Amino acid sequence: MEIIGHPLPDMPWEERPAGCRDVLWRYSGNPVIPRDLLPDSNSIFNSAVVPFGDGYAGVFRCDDRNRRMTLHAGFSKDGLKWDIKPETIRFSCDIPEVAEWVYGYDPRVVEIDGRYYVTWCNGYHGPTIGVAWTDDFVVFHQVENAFLPYNRNGVLFPRKVNGRFAMLSRPSDTGHTAFGDIFYSESPDLAFWGRHRHVMAPAPFEVSAWQCLKIGAGPVPIETSEGWLLLYHGVLRSCNGYVYAFGSALLDRDEPWKVLARSGQYLVSPRETYELTGDVPNVTFPCAALHDPETGRIAVYYGCADTVTGLAFGYIPEIIDFTRRTSIL
Amino acid sequence: MEIIGHPLPDMPWEERPAGCRDVLWRYSGNPVIPRDLLPDSNSIFNSAVVPFGDGYAGVFRCDDRNRRMTLHAGFSKDGLKWDIKPETIRFSCDIPEVAEWVYGYDPRVVEIDGRYYVTWCNGYHGPTIGVAWTDDFVVFHQVENAFLPYNRNGVLFPRKVNGRFAMLSRPSDTGHTAFGDIFYSESPDLAFWGRHRHVMAPAPFEVSAWQCLKIGAGPVPIETSEGWLLLYHGVLRSCNGYVYAFGSALLDRDEPWKVLARSGQYLVSPRETYELTGDVPNVTFPCAALHDPETGRIAVYYGCADTVTGLAFGYIPEIIDFTRRTSIL
Amino acid sequence: MEIIGHPLPDMPWEERPAGCRDVLWRYSGNPVIPRDLLPDSNSIFNSAVVPFGDGYAGVFRCDDRNRRMTLHAGFSKDGLKWDIKPETIRFSCDIPEVAEWVYGYDPRVVEIDGRYYVTWCNGYHGPTIGVAWTDDFVVFHQVENAFLPYNRNGVLFPRKVNGRFAMLSRPSDTGHTAFGDIFYSESPDLAFWGRHRHVMAPAPFEVSAWQCLKIGAGPVPIETSEGWLLLYHGVLRSCNGYVYAFGSALLDRDEPWKVLARSGQYLVSPRETYELTGDVPNVTFPCAALHDPETGRIAVYYGCADTVTGLAFGYIPEIIDFTRRTSIL
Amino acid sequence: MEIIGHPLPDMPWEERPAGCRDVLWRYSGNPVIPRDLLPDSNSIFNSAVVPFGDGYAGVFRCDDRNRRMTLHAGFSKDGLKWDIKPETIRFSCDIPEVAEWVYGYDPRVVEIDGRYYVTWCNGYHGPTIGVAWTDDFVVFHQVENAFLPYNRNGVLFPRKVNGRFAMLSRPSDTGHTAFGDIFYSESPDLAFWGRHRHVMAPAPFEVSAWQCLKIGAGPVPIETSEGWLLLYHGVLRSCNGYVYAFGSALLDRDEPWKVLARSGQYLVSPRETYELTGDVPNVTFPCAALHDPETGRIAVYYGCADTVTGLAFGYIPEIIDFTRRTSIL
Amino acid sequence: MEIIGHPLPDMPWEERPAGCRDVLWRYSGNPVIPRDLLPDSNSIFNSAVVPFGDGYAGVFRCDDRNRRMTLHAGFSKDGLKWDIKPETIRFSCDIPEVAEWVYGYDPRVVEIDGRYYVTWCNGYHGPTIGVAWTDDFVVFHQVENAFLPYNRNGVLFPRKVNGRFAMLSRPSDTGHTAFGDIFYSESPDLAFWGRHRHVMAPAPFEVSAWQCLKIGAGPVPIETSEGWLLLYHGVLRSCNGYVYAFGSALLDRDEPWKVLARSGQYLVSPRETYELTGDVPNVTFPCAALHDPETGRIAVYYGCADTVTGLAFGYIPEIIDFTRRTSIL
Amino acid sequence: MEIIGHPLPDMPWEERPAGCRDVLWRYSGNPVIPRDLLPDSNSIFNSAVVPFGDGYAGVFRCDDRNRRMTLHAGFSKDGLKWDIKPETIRFSCDIPEVAEWVYGYDPRVVEIDGRYYVTWCNGYHGPTIGVAWTDDFVVFHQVENAFLPYNRNGVLFPRKVNGRFAMLSRPSDTGHTAFGDIFYSESPDLAFWGRHRHVMAPAPFEVSAWQCLKIGAGPVPIETSEGWLLLYHGVLRSCNGYVYAFGSALLDRDEPWKVLARSGQYLVSPRETYELTGDVPNVTFPCAALHDPETGRIAVYYGCADTVTGLAFGYIPEIIDFTRRTSIL
Repeated sequence: MEIIGHPLPDMPWEERPAGCRDVLWRYSGNPVIPRDLLPDSNSIFNSAVVPFGDGYAGVFRCDDRNRRMTLHAGFSKDGLKWDIKPETIRFSCDIPEVAEWVYGYDPRVVEIDGRYYVTWCNGYHGPTIGVAWTDDFVVFHQVENAFLPYNRNGVLFPRKVNGRFAMLSRPSDTGHTAFGDIFYSESPDLAFWGRHRHVMAPAPFEVSAWQCLKIGAGPVPIETSEGWLLLYHGVLRSCNGYVYAFGSALLDRDEPWKVLARSGQYLVSPRETYELTGDVPNVTFPCAALHDPETGRIAVYYGCADTVTGLAFGYIPEIIDFTRRTSIL
Repeated sequence: MEIIGHPLPDMPWEERPAGCRDVLWRYSGNPVIPRDLLPDSNSIFNSAVVPFGDGYAGVFRCDDRNRRMTLHAGFSKDGLKWDIKPETIRFSCDIPEVAEWVYGYDPRVVEIDGRYYVTWCNGYHGPTIGVAWTDDFVVFHQVENAFLPYNRNGVLFPRKVNGRFAMLSRPSDTGHTAFGDIFYSESPDLAFWGRHRHVMAPAPFEVSAWQCLKIGAGPVPIETSEGWLLLYHGVLRSCNGYVYAFGSALLDRDEPWKVLARSGQYLVSPRETYELTGDVPNVTFPCAALHDPETGRIAVYYGCADTVTGLAFGYIPEIIDFTRRTSIL
Repeated sequence: MEIIGHPLPDMPWEERPAGCRDVLWRYSGNPVIPRDLLPDSNSIFNSAVVPFGDGYAGVFRCDDRNRRMTLHAGFSKDGLKWDIKPETIRFSCDIPEVAEWVYGYDPRVVEIDGRYYVTWCNGYHGPTIGVAWTDDFVVFHQVENAFLPYNRNGVLFPRKVNGRFAMLSRPSDTGHTAFGDIFYSESPDLAFWGRHRHVMAPAPFEVSAWQCLKIGAGPVPIETSEGWLLLYHGVLRSCNGYVYAFGSALLDRDEPWKVLARSGQYLVSPRETYELTGDVPNVTFPCAALHDPETGRIAVYYGCADTVTGLAFGYIPEIIDFTRRTSIL
Repeated sequence: MEIIGHPLPDMPWEERPAGCRDVLWRYSGNPVIPRDLLPDSNSIFNSAVVPFGDGYAGVFRCDDRNRRMTLHAGFSKDGLKWDIKPETIRFSCDIPEVAEWVYGYDPRVVEIDGRYYVTWCNGYHGPTIGVAWTDDFVVFHQVENAFLPYNRNGVLFPRKVNGRFAMLSRPSDTGHTAFGDIFYSESPDLAFWGRHRHVMAPAPFEVSAWQCLKIGAGPVPIETSEGWLLLYHGVLRSCNGYVYAFGSALLDRDEPWKVLARSGQYLVSPRETYELTGDVPNVTFPCAALHDPETGRIAVYYGCADTVTGLAFGYIPEIIDFTRRTSIL
Repeated sequence: MEIIGHPLPDMPWEERPAGCRDVLWRYSGNPVIPRDLLPDSNSIFNSAVVPFGDGYAGVFRCDDRNRRMTLHAGFSKDGLKWDIKPETIRFSCDIPEVAEWVYGYDPRVVEIDGRYYVTWCNGYHGPTIGVAWTDDFVVFHQVENAFLPYNRNGVLFPRKVNGRFAMLSRPSDTGHTAFGDIFYSESPDLAFWGRHRHVMAPAPFEVSAWQCLKIGAGPVPIETSEGWLLLYHGVLRSCNGYVYAFGSALLDRDEPWKVLARSGQYLVSPRETYELTGDVPNVTFPCAALHDPETGRIAVYYGCADTVTGLAFGYIPEIIDFTRRTSIL
Repeated sequence: MEIIGHPLPDMPWEERPAGCRDVLWRYSGNPVIPRDLLPDSNSIFNSAVVPFGDGYAGVFRCDDRNRRMTLHAGFSKDGLKWDIKPETIRFSCDIPEVAEWVYGYDPRVVEIDGRYYVTWCNGYHGPTIGVAWTDDFVVFHQVENAFLPYNRNGVLFPRKVNGRFAMLSRPSDTGHTAFGDIFYSESPDLAFWGRHRHVMAPAPFEVSAWQCLKIGAGPVPIETSEGWLLLYHGVLRSCNGYVYAFGSALLDRDEPWKVLARSGQYLVSPRETYELTGDVPNVTFPCAALHDPETGRIAVYYGCADTVTGLAFGYIPEIIDFTRRTSIL
């Protein structure tokens, strides 16, 4: 099995605890980012990190005490201790209709050909997918929104597919959407998008209940010889609200809208106090992952109860095996 | 005032009845198309017509007695008596993921540079905007869906704007959507779409209640020296359901997402028995219009109670004047 | 039996048609006021009339073609043919917070001690009960809103009770309220209100279904030796929306919050085309009544399908008998 | 083809009108029973008739002007002109918990081995299926409710199946149920029921939309050599409420929970004014049918707009052919 | 007072803690069964246990990490430490329509005349009551579903009543049902059920709010000289979801649908962290109880937050006294 | 800056913890009142305290284990340890219609001119504002309800304004109201109320999300030279329910319906376990405050998770500064 990616031998890591049978295990220092890392932050979660320079950089969802959703840049030497800038990112944008900032949340960051691209849920007469790029995590250049509203969880692939930029997204509505499939789209230029393809719908309740209401892409897909490894969240609605867990899928390398395997089991579901309680109880929501192709290690950053950020570890080959072994296709 | 378009001196027409003060008046032979024109049709409404050859052609929403929504081609000498083909349109499409037919409704047809383009609400894992072209209304070539689901009321402009195809649409959700704004998008090639712009939101209840829940573009916009004349429907939700009426707006010729005037009054609201009762009571829903630039005459085809097709007449200059005079901008 | 009131021998009247067994019967010329009596009116309904001078005057709900709800004064010689002023009433009000007009609908008018008082559903950060008085139906003086929002169907008694102004109303919510009881309140000065008493709740579905969802006072109560005769509307919710019918109750003369009798049967329920179809199908909603104490005749003005105004006739003694005979108390 | 049943050569009948292509056609005298046939009735609909003596008898849903739902017996010489008893049926019942009457509606009547059985939606801490028998339509003996609440549309087969009484029903909830499948149950003694089997679910929207929300059995199934012919209603929910239409199915004679054919098209859907408007617009709801085995004629009684009773005619062989030809199985 | 049952002197037990005034007190080792007792279990709760051999056996709801609901057999020496079989129960069933497994949850187990009967919420075109019996907790024989869908919380009495099997159940709908009464039914043969009687409705909010939305039977009723002691759950809906607590009732021994006393207070309501947080916060849901007639001791197994299993202790005479003392009848 | 009020040098107090940047900080002994302070209490929260004699008195919401909402008097020497009377307050009231107790919750207490006034949410055919006074917290005299239903969070000002009693309240509906503005009303005599003024609506989601669904007054406003300092709660609805936080506003001293400043940030939002979990998770709801004008200290009592009572400390000048600094006006 081949795993694509830059070597990352010093990525954040803890071995699987003794006696643990889980495919992904939680970091002992969780939450890795507390809710009040910034002086006035209400919560820091659903944030994205990438290798950058000799450490890491990221774009962070930091809700303030007005509970406004804003994006902040941050930097870290080890991926565990973070220096998050207290000022929000001010995007540079020369399209007047797009330049007006309303809100932004749940960012993803991906490196493509040496440049860093940020996608996020961007308020433009409703939520849609905002797109920007940066070379330094200081100046961010915002371009056209990828899609019409209403959309969330836009995630770029780390390379062009079929010669075009490729994005997963989850069309949505204006509120606490009670449905949601993952779709795939392509763009020759990051300005115009098309060739929309359906990727996955929620699973039937009787088959895999944790993902029976809606699903959405999580971190940037990881390319392997077995296909694109996608971590994605799924939602179950109990009589007491939504529960967000996440599992994994393998997508075809050339036609990523074709699903090769899809885990019936979840990888992580809310179980720890910081996942069970907070501003939105019972949420584990992955937005980013670091991985080392050599060792197959992966470190997944995930929002916990819409309040803090958690970290979990695993091995990519084991996740791929798990995806196939529990597949519901 | 200049009105763009092909001369259409013999278009369907009746003069305003004596004593009538309405800007648009109904055809005395309404419904112009009855629900059972086809042997097995349940209803024929929300249909589109254009000048074609020495008469007219169109794409018709004909729900069958399974109440499946299907599209049929039709032809007419005078725009009043229609020969609708009993077989549904079978679109030719070489994109396997797009070619599978699920359902299609509420078509619009527009001529651009001598070719006829059809847009409709197309079932692809939810409603989105299907696109096809034809030269003869016999063979229809389907291309990529314009947008991700969920979308309805996709309406092409009759010429390229800024060198690109231009479309209005109304992002939506999966059901009887209780919201809806009109957006504008452009495409260099009918395959990839972008440069999405917000055009209009519903009006505040206190300002113009008939359009306070959702709005959507109706017939193909008509170009004039005063701007693009757009007829659009609006919805009010009473305790007994939705009421669909329609009014008018003027859009900037070069930046059509900029609204120059917008009628606070409706042009037509359900008032006749065939509009007040039927499969969905209280619906008047325009999808097409014929006009003659010389005389300024316009004939609007609109669905009535989701059951039959109605026709209404007016003068474009009067509609433009009405739009400005009652404007709520 | 004594009926209180000014003689009104020439009030609008038609005898009960042959073979008719109904307690109230409809005017053969219904709708007595059509929807388009005013040039730009969308509908005229839920309106109030009183004897005035040698004829009648009234305050009319005339929705315009923006479907904004506005109030207009009107005059009539015979109570059948109406001259409604095309301009909306502009209330004179020296309380800045109250003076700002938002919307007004469903007016009632009552004469108390020679002065005419208007109450209506008045938009003030939500619907509440607006109050004004006039001597001539030309100049209207608006005073404090009677209650906090959210309230509708405020109806003044035609004389002070216990030395204080007395009003029925129906506390409500911000939308298409799915509940509603009738309450009674008193005021020494039309500025401050209190001594709130519960009068009636909706009836159980199994007992009187037409009034099982919500109820509200209709015309100004008529004083008789048997108690106050109150016509009130009731609502049933079917799978296809609300149905508004109306019945009658007798209230204690001194303690009007005590109900002496309450009709289980309705007097009028939607049955005619102009009641069954219109902007809101299936509505018969009484807001005013004229009566002649001598003959016991009553003429009830009621809104039909939220579109036009209907008229129905009856005899007060028969209505009182009906109320007692079918009483569900 | 063999059709089971008693000869009924003089049953109500009109031939198919010239030019009519419909499988069922409406009676020219519709509504066959008006809403006010009884002095105080609000409506008469969803009623059941059977051959009785030298004419017909029936059990009728007559809502009074309290809009209470009650059952009345009625008799007719020709099946067209009815003498409905003004007093409600008072069931004789020696089970105290069952004897208390709350409400009853939507009756069906069937003759089994010379005795007449009535089933209806019976209020017992919610709607369930009440059961009674009569020999003369004067004295009715009520036995145990067939099922636990919440249930509606209980319809007995006209003979025992597998040596046991057999019933179709539609489990439901407490309100305007938004789901509904048809189930089959058996009983050795009309007291205890079991061997519950699923028969049919609503059809997918894309396949047969008129029956995509819920379905329920209509008249008593008619036995033929081709299977049991079942007419059943289906419901579509538009943005303006439910639409009730009806179609047909063929059930296996020995295992009636097995569906042999099921019409994708409806037989009747609301189209006439008395079906489109009334207390509940857009309802055609069949509860009974008369048929003559010799000629294959069938006369279907169906409720119209929950207000009046309609009648439609057809030929059983044609309906069976239609069922197979349009089958969606 | 006499308590019926087999002696169980070594049942799980802890005395009431010093200072505790509660009628039921929690086990100090709670949760007695953790969520991950099985390698791949997501949660273990709402499970049933009975004395078996020289120890205990049970049927356990073990949701897997697909969050599918499945049933497992388990055994224990002391009722505290459990050996739950990792494979799901595969029911033996010779009725093809019933044999197909969809899902099963919330089991109850009861011994009647030396044989063990299992009832559970069984997926058969919606939730209904599945029934099976076993002699050894290894082979389980499934028989006909007791009722039509939609039903939950079917609980058999531990002996025949009036010579027939007797069951409590809670008719329901297809989702997170917002209503629910307890009914009683009888069967001569476990195949056909009837003689349905209403037992209890939710209490008025002002009287006993914890049981004001819906109620359902919990463990198998315990026979005493004072009547059947029934523990049952009740639900309150706050703005943040459902809260499940449980109380007690006394039912007539011969006519168990007659309630002799019903606790206004709850016995247990969510208070501990393992009850307040988990997959469904704020749930305490009893499904089984062990008791020793001699000492009057009872040990109640209850699901906690739909995640783990808790245990609580008490004395039956005290519970009966509590039921009467706080009775809301 | 001048702060009005009686000196309270020995009020409950703890200094701000080292490193704490919060404007309000929590008491280290929280919850200051546990849920089971009374033998049979389910919870004690949303309660009001005032200086009284040489200590403190209060009116407490103590829900019992029926989960009925009741009011109890209580006394304390230090404001931390409370002696709450186990018997509920029995109000003395000579208005028969008002005297009947249904339920009462969320009390506020204020001293005006040496007399103590209690307001609470009082059940009278729905929730409204009950009013009573006491001199000794032993005998309570109930007067007329201030308003018609449906209303909550009625809070009296500590002195007359414009010569009249003044009250804030939040008109509401019959359930878990999803809207809510703060209004202001005046009364000359505590019997009749009027001069209703709108004070504040919820904030736009994009501006201050914690208060975007509804808001309501908390403790009695504190008069200062800068205006009335009002603490008020705000609600955000997540996919998992409501979150109650609280912030602050400054109201004009003479026209208190005019808002001078309004905090965009919250002061306290659920963060501690006793706020995040309980009968209603994620609630911090202030009902009372003690303050010392000299030092500017304030101690805020607030309900936690609708289960226990918390206490938080701060300095009034800092709160005023915070209100202005983060103001969203």
